[in-house]
Amino acid sequence: MQLNREVEVLFEPERVVLIGSSKIREKVGMSSPQLFENVVYNMKRYFKGEVYVVDVHGEKGFASIEEVPAEPQLAVIMLPPEESIVQAEKSAGKGVKALVMITGGYKEAQRQRLLTLKSEYNVRILGPNTIMGVINTENGLNTTFERDLMPRKGGIAVISQSGGVGACLLDWACYYRLGLSKFAFMGDKIDIDDVDLLQYLDHDRKTRVICLYMEGIKNGKRFVEAAQQIVRRKPILVLKGGVTAEAARRALSHTASIAGSDEVFNAALKKAGIIRVETLEELMNSAVALEKQPPLKGERIAVVSNVGGPAIIAADALAREGLKLAPLTPETQKTIERLYPGVDATNPIDMIADARAERYKRVLDMVLADPNVDGVMVINMLKSCFFEPEDAKAIAETAEKYPEKPVVDVPAGGEDFELIHKVLGETNIPLYNIPEKAAKALKTLREYGKILEKLEKNGKPINREDEFKLKR
Amino acid sequence: MQLNREVEVLFEPERVVLIGSSKIREKVGMSSPQLFENVVYNMKRYFKGEVYVVDVHGEKGFASIEEVPAEPQLAVIMLPPEESIVQAEKSAGKGVKALVMITGGYKEAQRQRLLTLKSEYNVRILGPNTIMGVINTENGLNTTFERDLMPRKGGIAVISQSGGVGACLLDWACYYRLGLSKFAFMGDKIDIDDVDLLQYLDHDRKTRVICLYMEGIKNGKRFVEAAQQIVRRKPILVLKGGVTAEAARRALSHTASIAGSDEVFNAALKKAGIIRVETLEELMNSAVALEKQPPLKGERIAVVSNVGGPAIIAADALAREGLKLAPLTPETQKTIERLYPGVDATNPIDMIADARAERYKRVLDMVLADPNVDGVMVINMLKSCFFEPEDAKAIAETAEKYPEKPVVDVPAGGEDFELIHKVLGETNIPLYNIPEKAAKALKTLREYGKILEKLEKNGKPINREDEFKLKR
Repeated sequence: MQLNREVEVLFEPERVVLIGSSKIREKVGMSSPQLFENVVYNMKRYFKGEVYVVDVHGEKGFASIEEVPAEPQLAVIMLPPEESIVQAEKSAGKGVKALVMITGGYKEAQRQRLLTLKSEYNVRILGPNTIMGVINTENGLNTTFERDLMPRKGGIAVISQSGGVGACLLDWACYYRLGLSKFAFMGDKIDIDDVDLLQYLDHDRKTRVICLYMEGIKNGKRFVEAAQQIVRRKPILVLKGGVTAEAARRALSHTASIAGSDEVFNAALKKAGIIRVETLEELMNSAVALEKQPPLKGERIAVVSNVGGPAIIAADALAREGLKLAPLTPETQKTIERLYPGVDATNPIDMIADARAERYKRVLDMVLADPNVDGVMVINMLKSCFFEPEDAKAIAETAEKYPEKPVVDVPAGGEDFELIHKVLGETNIPLYNIPEKAAKALKTLREYGKILEKLEKNGKPINREDEFKLKR
Repeated sequence: MQLNREVEVLFEPERVVLIGSSKIREKVGMSSPQLFENVVYNMKRYFKGEVYVVDVHGEKGFASIEEVPAEPQLAVIMLPPEESIVQAEKSAGKGVKALVMITGGYKEAQRQRLLTLKSEYNVRILGPNTIMGVINTENGLNTTFERDLMPRKGGIAVISQSGGVGACLLDWACYYRLGLSKFAFMGDKIDIDDVDLLQYLDHDRKTRVICLYMEGIKNGKRFVEAAQQIVRRKPILVLKGGVTAEAARRALSHTASIAGSDEVFNAALKKAGIIRVETLEELMNSAVALEKQPPLKGERIAVVSNVGGPAIIAADALAREGLKLAPLTPETQKTIERLYPGVDATNPIDMIADARAERYKRVLDMVLADPNVDGVMVINMLKSCFFEPEDAKAIAETAEKYPEKPVVDVPAGGEDFELIHKVLGETNIPLYNIPEKAAKALKTLREYGKILEKLEKNGKPINREDEFKLKR
């Protein structure tokens, strides 16, 4: 599929030119010598291709793109609007295929001048007002001006219309060591938009789940039709800003978005098979679940815990999310209770505070093999229990044996979460610091399960290339 | 008020005896030499009073409480049920006024024997099955068996019926350095119950807000009547476990609680003026808001931010929580826009990415002085902005000048939150890592405001001793 060759070059260029100034400091805006230096630093440190630096004041690097002794495919421009347009023209003339326009504050006429370049040179434009540009963890492309803000490699792609929201999500992803494939700040999207990026990510083999923060859609029909195709292969999560009237007014001045009616938006997402989330944290928590675990094929969840109270909270939370406590088969229940006297194996299962790796392994194994169970929420606290961080490996190992049944884990609390995160954070087990968040994550896995079921019922082929090796 | 002298001694003893064994290791349960040693360690390290250790196997400390050369007021007993009862009897005989019974697994007859001690010696009993007992940050009393799990001093009291939930909340509080006054694990509450503890905390000058995790109420009428009195002075937050039928069944076996109908429970809380929360995190987040900030006297919130997208998300979240975007007076708006060209001062206010301490200070000052504003959500991101962690001090300083208007702060993200937490974590500004959580916290402040307004309207005197110095 050659649909988005120009967008491909946005993430996979071999040669990149960074155009800024060692002198210009915008009064209101992102053009500054320090930020320019930071982008140069990140690109030189992380990017595996060639990097050329153009300083329009000629102090650092080349004085002009004409002097660059090669043909860069991507230009990152961080100058005030008028200067940026001049450089964009020169870049297009030099054969650059895609432009990342960092700064904002463009007037309508200036936007039109940029768009002229598109029709004249067939160059594609991201932004303006992208603030942080793009990241590709695979080749180290990182046009952000925050030094060393480089996420770990993984399967989550994030597209943000807003610089602030994007920066927040990126900071979150780096802090919790989530695995990202691509990151894009769309800004004012005068050219490259959600659909272009979605279609590129659809065919990006590193991307398993797509997160989208948006404040409005330009062409709803095109968006829905594109998404309908993509969700057969990978899930799309959307967080929408500007739901209420006042927020929508702000979105209009923020990214020139027309928010439209929330009911219409909701109906469009439903039609598209997109999962909508309500908060920034839910977006990231859901993405981790969808990246690491298969969709839920039913509502019946088993809770396997070493503490009673949090298991009760888990049961309540599952019900609130429309899921059910799995009715374990009498065999499973009896076997567990015979093996571990004192344990009441009615779901939610309280394995008692002295449960270690061995008990988790055996009980999880039986529960995951139980035909009455569609998925499992594990709770393993350290505080007040005998469980040790290393014991958590047993959870990942056992879950691996059942690739079609999702498992999520709750090391409930503060330090407990951090200690288990050190052991399981980079495995396939999604971690949540309270049972309520794990229940929400399971609900998202069920939502995606239902989307796939509906598509299959309607005769649309599901094409999850990793269907049989769903857990990486 | 002499109502709960016996409960007072539970938190404020001068002499404490710890009774355990250096040999007994329960097969299922919390009696173990290691855990006993940990309690001894914590008490010796943190408790400011006298600590006596009785090892029933005579290897560490006294062999029997009779040998203790003083009259301890509190005994902490962590032995299997039968041995615990024997030691409880001896302790009562020695003049001990209160017992903390750590271990669980008591049969009904054994519980009755414990209760006999109460009527015979007038000794009060916490538990059995308290797992972790009690903490008083003021005098260093800490009967938990997790070494150095000692929270920072502050105004939040926590009562948990469940050991696991209590351990999770305690771990959370220590990790995020929340300020606690008292912590109590109630366990099976055969004697000392929610009402006893609530009434003690009511008169505890260190406690400003009370958090309660409960799975059932024994005497609803008594509970409601007690709470009605207390909430005039300090807010009570409740998280209830066992809401759904399956979870309720587990609660019955977990802490012998009859969960009852959730509608009835909800109505009781409403009548009592108690604020109900839905998740463990909401419990802690709400507690921090209520500890540090005054109740909200209206619904009109101003958002003061250095990023656009997160401010839009904040506006949406406020609406979802039933709050409103404050319509700033034209004077406020004009003054801000004249001072900072490029800033659109329509609420939510986007002060743009280059806002530093000075701009936050001036804008916050104007917004808090605006009669159309009841409270403020500040958003200050570091990533993608010029804001530096030290700038955050300006927020705390400015908020201090308006003691009747709540201010909450959102350093959105992961590392951003941690960096600002280092600067503001121990000030009066509650911090949340996403705008949605800050909106929920503001909603809780409004809920408590409404509870107080209703009481006042009904002619019940409000007796917040700190009404005029609401911010500590």
